[in-house]
Amino acid sequence: MTAAWLDRVRFDAAGLVPAIAQDATSGKVLTLAWMNREALERTAATREAHYWSRSRAKLWRKGESSGHVQRVREIRLDCDDDAILLVVEQGGGIACHTGRERCFFLKLEDGGWREVEPVLKDPKAIYGD
Amino acid sequence: MTAAWLDRVRFDAAGLVPAIAQDATSGKVLTLAWMNREALERTAATREAHYWSRSRAKLWRKGESSGHVQRVREIRLDCDDDAILLVVEQGGGIACHTGRERCFFLKLEDGGWREVEPVLKDPKAIYGD
Repeated sequence: MTAAWLDRVRFDAAGLVPAIAQDATSGKVLTLAWMNREALERTAATREAHYWSRSRAKLWRKGESSGHVQRVREIRLDCDDDAILLVVEQGGGIACHTGRERCFFLKLEDGGWREVEPVLKDPKAIYGD
Repeated sequence: MTAAWLDRVRFDAAGLVPAIAQDATSGKVLTLAWMNREALERTAATREAHYWSRSRAKLWRKGESSGHVQRVREIRLDCDDDAILLVVEQGGGIACHTGRERCFFLKLEDGGWREVEPVLKDPKAIYGD
């Protein structure tokens, strides 16, 4: 299938592009993950966020284990064609594997990283033991 | 100088970490750029965003040419210690080198990338010819 819009995206040497997910309601930045071409194509086709897991080296539908799917309202590309922004509805209100609303819960304060957001659900309850 | 908080950040094989800048007032995601250790250290020390320019292979204080400095209100790290989020006050209201408010001005619609945000200032007026 031809897809000129996909061809425009500049994937890096590893075939990946960083993808930011932002909550459509709160505006909070939830996650930064990585997409290969297939992940981006599936995201656009299904309107559910798909990523490439670098640690597991596999395509991954966000929420496939946790149920915390990201429904995609908007897909954006930046001026250099090498970063993606998704505007999403975050299923369960939890984007992070730690059970927090989002991954950016560490804030630099007084020369150290402080955890400034609570765990909303025990990861064991999300993923099982 | 010891800096345990800097040691925690997982820079990639090229010594870089992706850094998102989000507007403190509007909540809009403005830019995704890259930082090396020095850029992050200077950002924290000066409270002005510094990045590593991959195309020019040099440290770069955002706004040094354009005047569109990013004053940093918050520095955050994600759960995997490999992505940075800055909450910033965007000088001039223009983050993108194209003269737009932000870099994510391309939206996927009907199978193509559409420019959905206006140029606020001619780049020639920002950078000179």
